Amino acid sequence: MALQRIALGLEYDGSQFEGWQTQPHGRTLQDTLEQAIACFTQEPAPASICAGRTDTGVHALEQVVHFDTQRERAPISWVRGVNRYLPAALAVRWATPVASEFHARYCARRRCYEYWILNQGARAPLLTQRTGWVFRALDVEAMRAAAGHLLGTHDFSAFRSAQCQSATPVRTMHQCDVDRVAPALVRVRVSANAFLHHMVRNLVGALVSVGTGRHPSSWVAEILQARDRTRAAPTIEAGGLYLTSVEYDSRWGLPAASERRFLV
Amino acid sequence: MALQRIALGLEYDGSQFEGWQTQPHGRTLQDTLEQAIACFTQEPAPASICAGRTDTGVHALEQVVHFDTQRERAPISWVRGVNRYLPAALAVRWATPVASEFHARYCARRRCYEYWILNQGARAPLLTQRTGWVFRALDVEAMRAAAGHLLGTHDFSAFRSAQCQSATPVRTMHQCDVDRVAPALVRVRVSANAFLHHMVRNLVGALVSVGTGRHPSSWVAEILQARDRTRAAPTIEAGGLYLTSVEYDSRWGLPAASERRFLV
Repeated sequence: MALQRIALGLEYDGSQFEGWQTQPHGRTLQDTLEQAIACFTQEPAPASICAGRTDTGVHALEQVVHFDTQRERAPISWVRGVNRYLPAALAVRWATPVASEFHARYCARRRCYEYWILNQGARAPLLTQRTGWVFRALDVEAMRAAAGHLLGTHDFSAFRSAQCQSATPVRTMHQCDVDRVAPALVRVRVSANAFLHHMVRNLVGALVSVGTGRHPSSWVAEILQARDRTRAAPTIEAGGLYLTSVEYDSRWGLPAASERRFLV
Repeated sequence: MALQRIALGLEYDGSQFEGWQTQPHGRTLQDTLEQAIACFTQEPAPASICAGRTDTGVHALEQVVHFDTQRERAPISWVRGVNRYLPAALAVRWATPVASEFHARYCARRRCYEYWILNQGARAPLLTQRTGWVFRALDVEAMRAAAGHLLGTHDFSAFRSAQCQSATPVRTMHQCDVDRVAPALVRVRVSANAFLHHMVRNLVGALVSVGTGRHPSSWVAEILQARDRTRAAPTIEAGGLYLTSVEYDSRWGLPAASERRFLV
């Protein structure tokens, strides 16, 4: 029987897992997903590939994954069947068969993330592990000016963690918007062809340094140019970060972005 | 030294506690708060009184509490000092000294709750324990028509749990609004002088029965009139319920509602 490649859209609460990538202890998203697929298909656990391996604590509204199987199931059966074996903190939102050339990581053209900052003096219990927390008032205009320096194609070494395994530090940033969406909530939206390890959290850390007045907006351009991680701002906490969507060429036939979240 | 009465506004994630009211095991909101106050004041744990005792899993954006102390502290010190001893799932948002006649429960004129329903086919991992889940499409217009029957002063026995200890089942409902606030989210907002045990969750359960087409809107008027809990709908899950505010006469000098959430 021929292998069929299946693409899945996943949503998860990252605070309940120790990151994406498989570990011997098994408490990762990849391990949990692969075991659920094995339970549903009654096949050995498949090797799954995701669009972007998220760290411990990072959430996803849409992570995209592919794997190969000999089972033939309708898309809705993949969604309901795999969900039956997943904990409440992880769910399949859509599924679709794809060509065997599709690759969730290498075919992704653009990744979109949001970082949510709680910006008030007191902690908010209902937003614990769902937002980063900055208690000093943020100057959103200054952050926006700083964010403008990051657009376009750059060597992002200044915002790359020491553990980053990418062959090149060059990325193309398409969007970096900063908005105060509520009196106590600031949202940073970024999209790029791809991101380096810790890049979004390091970028947001730098924007926060500007927002609190520690550095002028132009400082972000300086550290970007210096390409030296040691001169940049601290990495902001993981709980405020959400992988919101991954874009692919339409020829792969994934559900259109507008339809994906409400297919089921 | 004279006793001073202090009123506090609290926010909490109810999924992390076994309800408000003190229990021998101590994993309740009341126990956690009173121990934190004792740590900060270096006094024996005070007896605290809240505006409305929430059940296990029910959240609060604003619960109001009072207690008596011999310590003199500025309001901001009460907030920061008590918060130092509280877990992430519970926080003091404001504090103010009040007259010794103030009583968080008996002086409350109105309680406001919101119930949030996830209304889509699939679970949403980031909304687990934060919303109720109804997978059949809800007819919000029908729910709104049903809600209209609940406004005014009624005997709410049909929506009262068997454990309810209230002397009378009569309550005055000021507001019962149903809105689809996002494609997959329906919000029910209710306010009344006070609520019976499980009343909001029983009301929302009945509105959902109407929204899914199981009963016509007029059925809510019928069960209200019948005053028979056994004829009504099941209690909806606790995780979607939020105590959002408690209203008092202005003579008590609590922070104005518009200021409360952003005082610190």
